[in-house]
Amino acid sequence: MTYCVGLLLETGLVMASDSRTNAGVDHVATFPKMTNFSIAGERVLVVLTSGNLAISQAVVSHLHKAIAENIEPNLHSVTNMFDAARIVGDALRAVHHEDAEHLRKHQAEFNQAILLGGQIQGESPRLFNIYAAGNFIEACAETPYFQIGETKYGKPILDRVIENRSDLNEAAKCTLISFDSTIRSNLSVGTPIDLMVYKSGSFTTDCIQRITDSDPYFSMLRKSWAEGLRRVFAEIPNPDWCR
Amino acid sequence: MTYCVGLLLETGLVMASDSRTNAGVDHVATFPKMTNFSIAGERVLVVLTSGNLAISQAVVSHLHKAIAENIEPNLHSVTNMFDAARIVGDALRAVHHEDAEHLRKHQAEFNQAILLGGQIQGESPRLFNIYAAGNFIEACAETPYFQIGETKYGKPILDRVIENRSDLNEAAKCTLISFDSTIRSNLSVGTPIDLMVYKSGSFTTDCIQRITDSDPYFSMLRKSWAEGLRRVFAEIPNPDWCR
Repeated sequence: MTYCVGLLLETGLVMASDSRTNAGVDHVATFPKMTNFSIAGERVLVVLTSGNLAISQAVVSHLHKAIAENIEPNLHSVTNMFDAARIVGDALRAVHHEDAEHLRKHQAEFNQAILLGGQIQGESPRLFNIYAAGNFIEACAETPYFQIGETKYGKPILDRVIENRSDLNEAAKCTLISFDSTIRSNLSVGTPIDLMVYKSGSFTTDCIQRITDSDPYFSMLRKSWAEGLRRVFAEIPNPDWCR
Repeated sequence: MTYCVGLLLETGLVMASDSRTNAGVDHVATFPKMTNFSIAGERVLVVLTSGNLAISQAVVSHLHKAIAENIEPNLHSVTNMFDAARIVGDALRAVHHEDAEHLRKHQAEFNQAILLGGQIQGESPRLFNIYAAGNFIEACAETPYFQIGETKYGKPILDRVIENRSDLNEAAKCTLISFDSTIRSNLSVGTPIDLMVYKSGSFTTDCIQRITDSDPYFSMLRKSWAEGLRRVFAEIPNPDWCR
């Protein structure tokens, strides 16, 4: 399983992915699911992948190859985020063309989802959710976040807190709480978490970091959140329905 | 969709079910999913159902019919909860025998899940999770709760709070918070909530009640929980990763 989140805010983007992969419970491994296609000062393009790891890696390889071999269009030549999303969708379709029939013979489905977030000079930051079929939707002020993978455990806190006008660092805090809830409830989602906090117009990915279990901020956050929830729970009076 | 929870505690049981059913988004209705087969002073037997409503109602009708026509064994003659769970499982198997083939012709699956909780004189309270195949598992001190239906949104708070030795009223409070999270996140789960708080050895179901949106305790709980979560969230310092 996998958990990835992307948030589109007025002031920038927050994107995060876990790094656990598994095939059954006896084959668990760590693979990053965040790929950075940025060019400092010019464009920020970050891809988060969910689903079959072989498909994810094939898609990323297609995207890298097009850049390396100057095959047009590619993520380094494209002039807007919509066209970038189209390129990622087309890479997914190419892998589907190559692999889907073979997967079907092994009763494996082509369930893939990709988040693409970033900013290209001349545009505001944009965030896309790209489906297995290669088509996609774009986040907007009213629905400022997308999740892929194991989405349910971590959704309530996003729904309660995140708005388009949320502060970037506050949104990063909320994202990590969302990961905490998911990691507690689903063994197939695990640290380290790759996290990008991107400030609109900065055109740098300096704020990408890898958060491990021993990260001091993440440890403090998990502890404080758990204690806080228990405190709030205790403060609400019990009903007196059974005496 | 549906959300049902059963908790087995040292001091009794908490069982709760929502009451929304839907077939697509344009056919939404209210049907209770809790059925009470108790005999005051002698036995408490409560069934919560999830899945195809026609199957749930057929199973409940089978169980009622066996009681009404003195077909042995039935839920009023059985002398222990294990045998009661077997009877419920057998009713599910009987409906499967009648309906599953016909459902298959309409591409409808036989996805059913049932919780059975209660107490029969001579035993402690017991709680069972009965699968579509009619077999079942029983809750224990280490895993004191079962959920069926839309289980994920409401699971984190149960995991954080519920232990076998939790107080009954506190467990009822936690159950309602679990419903609040689920109702907020999934339109196909809705009030009223049928809730039983059962004190071990009382052999009464006086503590079954129907909780609507306008219930004063539930309204206070939802408001306090929302405000409390926001307060805890605000109290935790933001990271300073993006300046």
